[in-house]
Amino acid sequence: MTEHTSGLGHEMYALAEELFPICRSITGDGLRQSLKRLTRIAPYTKYEVATGTQCFDWVVPQEWNIRDAYIVDPAGHKIVDFKHNSLHVVSYSTPVHTRMPLEQLQQHLYSLPEQPEAIPYITSYYSPRWGFCLTEEQRRGLVPGDYEVLIDSELKNGHLTYGELIVPGDSEEEVLLSSYLCHPSMANNELSGPIVTTYLARWLLSLERRRYTYRIVIVPETIGSIVYLSRNLEAMKAKTVAGYVLTCIGDDRDYSYLPSRAGDTLADQAAQHVLKHVYPDYSHYSYLERGSDERQYCSPGVDLPVCSMMRSKYATYPEYHTSLDNLDFVSPAGLYGGYSAVQKALQCLELNERLRSTVCCEPQLGKRGLYPSLSTKESNDTVRDMLNFLAYADGQHSVLDIAEKIGVPVWSMAELIPRFKQERLLQAV
Amino acid sequence: MTEHTSGLGHEMYALAEELFPICRSITGDGLRQSLKRLTRIAPYTKYEVATGTQCFDWVVPQEWNIRDAYIVDPAGHKIVDFKHNSLHVVSYSTPVHTRMPLEQLQQHLYSLPEQPEAIPYITSYYSPRWGFCLTEEQRRGLVPGDYEVLIDSELKNGHLTYGELIVPGDSEEEVLLSSYLCHPSMANNELSGPIVTTYLARWLLSLERRRYTYRIVIVPETIGSIVYLSRNLEAMKAKTVAGYVLTCIGDDRDYSYLPSRAGDTLADQAAQHVLKHVYPDYSHYSYLERGSDERQYCSPGVDLPVCSMMRSKYATYPEYHTSLDNLDFVSPAGLYGGYSAVQKALQCLELNERLRSTVCCEPQLGKRGLYPSLSTKESNDTVRDMLNFLAYADGQHSVLDIAEKIGVPVWSMAELIPRFKQERLLQAV
Amino acid sequence: MTEHTSGLGHEMYALAEELFPICRSITGDGLRQSLKRLTRIAPYTKYEVATGTQCFDWVVPQEWNIRDAYIVDPAGHKIVDFKHNSLHVVSYSTPVHTRMPLEQLQQHLYSLPEQPEAIPYITSYYSPRWGFCLTEEQRRGLVPGDYEVLIDSELKNGHLTYGELIVPGDSEEEVLLSSYLCHPSMANNELSGPIVTTYLARWLLSLERRRYTYRIVIVPETIGSIVYLSRNLEAMKAKTVAGYVLTCIGDDRDYSYLPSRAGDTLADQAAQHVLKHVYPDYSHYSYLERGSDERQYCSPGVDLPVCSMMRSKYATYPEYHTSLDNLDFVSPAGLYGGYSAVQKALQCLELNERLRSTVCCEPQLGKRGLYPSLSTKESNDTVRDMLNFLAYADGQHSVLDIAEKIGVPVWSMAELIPRFKQERLLQAV
Repeated sequence: MTEHTSGLGHEMYALAEELFPICRSITGDGLRQSLKRLTRIAPYTKYEVATGTQCFDWVVPQEWNIRDAYIVDPAGHKIVDFKHNSLHVVSYSTPVHTRMPLEQLQQHLYSLPEQPEAIPYITSYYSPRWGFCLTEEQRRGLVPGDYEVLIDSELKNGHLTYGELIVPGDSEEEVLLSSYLCHPSMANNELSGPIVTTYLARWLLSLERRRYTYRIVIVPETIGSIVYLSRNLEAMKAKTVAGYVLTCIGDDRDYSYLPSRAGDTLADQAAQHVLKHVYPDYSHYSYLERGSDERQYCSPGVDLPVCSMMRSKYATYPEYHTSLDNLDFVSPAGLYGGYSAVQKALQCLELNERLRSTVCCEPQLGKRGLYPSLSTKESNDTVRDMLNFLAYADGQHSVLDIAEKIGVPVWSMAELIPRFKQERLLQAV
Repeated sequence: MTEHTSGLGHEMYALAEELFPICRSITGDGLRQSLKRLTRIAPYTKYEVATGTQCFDWVVPQEWNIRDAYIVDPAGHKIVDFKHNSLHVVSYSTPVHTRMPLEQLQQHLYSLPEQPEAIPYITSYYSPRWGFCLTEEQRRGLVPGDYEVLIDSELKNGHLTYGELIVPGDSEEEVLLSSYLCHPSMANNELSGPIVTTYLARWLLSLERRRYTYRIVIVPETIGSIVYLSRNLEAMKAKTVAGYVLTCIGDDRDYSYLPSRAGDTLADQAAQHVLKHVYPDYSHYSYLERGSDERQYCSPGVDLPVCSMMRSKYATYPEYHTSLDNLDFVSPAGLYGGYSAVQKALQCLELNERLRSTVCCEPQLGKRGLYPSLSTKESNDTVRDMLNFLAYADGQHSVLDIAEKIGVPVWSMAELIPRFKQERLLQAV
Repeated sequence: MTEHTSGLGHEMYALAEELFPICRSITGDGLRQSLKRLTRIAPYTKYEVATGTQCFDWVVPQEWNIRDAYIVDPAGHKIVDFKHNSLHVVSYSTPVHTRMPLEQLQQHLYSLPEQPEAIPYITSYYSPRWGFCLTEEQRRGLVPGDYEVLIDSELKNGHLTYGELIVPGDSEEEVLLSSYLCHPSMANNELSGPIVTTYLARWLLSLERRRYTYRIVIVPETIGSIVYLSRNLEAMKAKTVAGYVLTCIGDDRDYSYLPSRAGDTLADQAAQHVLKHVYPDYSHYSYLERGSDERQYCSPGVDLPVCSMMRSKYATYPEYHTSLDNLDFVSPAGLYGGYSAVQKALQCLELNERLRSTVCCEPQLGKRGLYPSLSTKESNDTVRDMLNFLAYADGQHSVLDIAEKIGVPVWSMAELIPRFKQERLLQAV
């Protein structure tokens, strides 16, 4: 797949480079620092929720922070260093500083025999333990003897942090964009998600007017969306017309769609419409293959119209949840492609009204100057699309329905619809 | 495809031969003369609508008539002669009589480089111009020099002509048959349409009784159906249960169906049911491929349950809109096949009531003499079809629904249904 | 197909051996004797309906009984003997004792030229006649001469016999199981049907509690279900939520499903769900291929949600309705497979309630001990199935709907659902 990119793609990529080294987790300063950096692009409001707060079936956990971590081998060499890659420490590791023989250390090591060059990403949020992640190659080179291990971390009552931005529109009805910011040094999953989301927020803010209000949230995954929902459920159930979870949206391999639980909401329709036109071979997953915050947004009792648009879906590419999901795996073009696809979906939502033709029988386009002056293949296609659009504008089909019926992208009608309204050929229902 | 024909096929073909030479257009005496000839077979009432009458978004144009047209070459030979083929003149050509050099004349000539033996059919109803159509072969033979051109035509305020026949039935509910009569010397598109329609009108008049009232209209295409709708819309919206646009219905190559905009009306169901049984390989088009008066009948605001039954659809066969769409392209068998298919669709509509079995459990057919006395493969099939028919006669399925469910043509049940009613096994809902 | 069997399979097979020799018909002592034997396993109540009783469109026929029948050849050898195989006599044969030459006898003989080793099964319930059935091989060996024929049968006013067992449940809503008991010495069609049905009755009676009430009927085919319906229609229409006709359910070749007339009732859903998991290659027939008592249960006016679960469907296997449908054609494993499949369908019905998740967002399974302590492929599948089940428990999907959505058999959730309820994660709607 070759794709055009733009300055915007490079700008997003540069931001990914900047955020990449930070050690994020579901709480703590890495998340705060990353959110603060995003806030320079879109003015998120930061919220802090105290450890111990009950959120539906869950409780906000202790806050985790880490300053340093390493392993020193029997010869005195620092062979695993958190400062070199934040993946080296199991996320939420309890503090430790001790010496132990190799055989005992092995109980705390994690590597991937089938991907010997990759450091795995391991977490243990709800069972206290400590551990190091390293490549299988490095692990195979460990010699017997005594090792020094240090994890200078802290678990204490504190807060869970999230960001929220409400971009107001003409209507109180809302579109939700949700991404997560809790993974250490990995690029597609997850930096691509919050970065693309934040640049979409900037674009939405730049528009002269918006039909819908946009609720944009940057949370830690799972516990973060649960916390957020527990504080905003009533408003979201009342107002949300569509929403997207944005993750794994910066690589170049694929485009992917994972439906909402209901499967046929407006969000699903717009996502599928866009991907069909942008990349017809996109991967269409099942809700049974879900794995991110749509698990919460679509759960019974919440049941929001939220689906997921991605490039290469989590858990489908070999680099996933390893140190190989790095800045080589995403690209400016990959980020821009993901950004553009979601942008088009939002345009579909903005344009998607019900329109009714105001004349009986076909209108005479010629007398209104709507016939192209030169008859070419392209102009004939335009006339055909115009007549087809008007033929289905019966007050029952939405713009998205019509675009699907007549086989054109919604955004190709963006200029024509206001023109039709101006010519009094169409009116909103 | 081999087909049985009948005297009726030959009668329709003879009428096509008679009407073929007449130069018709969307107004004028050619249309009047052709309609008058059809009125000898079915008593259409002729309506005349004055130039300038506003009809929805359109205005009735000036009336066009033509007496003669030709080109004389530099050697004095009449090389293009309207009297030889009415296609030689661009329809609605303004009058002209002058001499001009070849290079200037070329601006007014139309031919088909890829079909060098065919004269194209060209119209210019709404942009004043004049022109001649000729074969590419003839055009290539033109020598430099001065040519005399004459088009003895007239554009003046007058009338647009159409025919209407209402065949009353037991119900005020109506079935619409609509065809058009505005093309010069071409056979499948369009003489087959008005001829088959007119013979169907004669057949409907010959029936002892009809369930539905039939509204049969012969109009010029597009502007004619718009004019007709503008004068009859309220009644048609209130009464129409199904309708067919009949065109391109006299050749031997194919059978075709083009759905209504809604796609699943009673008219669509009957048409598909018939074609499936008559010619299973029939071409099923999309409403996006429409091109005749269903554009008006199905437009938003009109929205009638009207689809189209054809043999080879317009714009799909190479002879379309050329002098090759002539009396060799249609045939008695082709016309009769088209006639029979539509006739069967009308029988489906007439028979299509909701029936309810009046006994619980299967009835005992034997004591009513409904079991064939001799058990053969054929009689077993009959018993099976009888029991299947009764099994679905639950007051919810229509006869057409049942026929689809049990895999038999509606018309094969035409004798059985009254028999079942007489035996008090079925009653209408 | 290899199948596990069980003691139960052998017990059912032994009963088939015991019932096989009895000459059953749609009335008479063979039916009574067979029903009495079944009553030792499940306590059917016997009903007797007098000859001449009007039942919808039908009348209960005279009762038929037979003591002996044979043909003696010109040499004095008894060559066809009813005592050897009850199929040798046309069912409902009128009595006869006479001598006649071979050519006259031939009018009363039935054999199968294409299956020369099989005795056909022939009936003549509603046209008085007599006849013998024999193998084509035997028939070919008949020599000219005088034959003695005896049919010591009796047709007289009497009764039609059927059995009924109501197994009460928590609800008055009913599930119907219906099988028939009117065929002479054949094993798959029909002894498998009443035997499997009767052992299912015994199983239902053994349950501590049942959600539904079960109406279990053993009737002669066609006339018997018509008689039964004529006496119980109102109650059955008010109470029946699902039902199965059980026939041809003891061989090893296939599993088959024949839908109800409506095609999408709860009975249909459960049957298809079971067969998809038990034997994915099962044969899915159309209602147009029906041939047993669903003809009555699904007839308009009756219209019960009843379909049929079978092993090899009647009229599809060459042994059908001949002496080759014998105890070699069914097996303990075949009977047990059929029994188990229907049992699973009944379990689906019993478990099929609408459940609603009581927590917003995903619940925390870990704190409830619902996460397996050891993470294996199997335990991961279990967690996935648990979360998927809860994800669809929205009060709108039934358990059967959810199982279909998430691709697991309903019965695999049998232990989990009570556990979820106990943990207050789910409640019935």
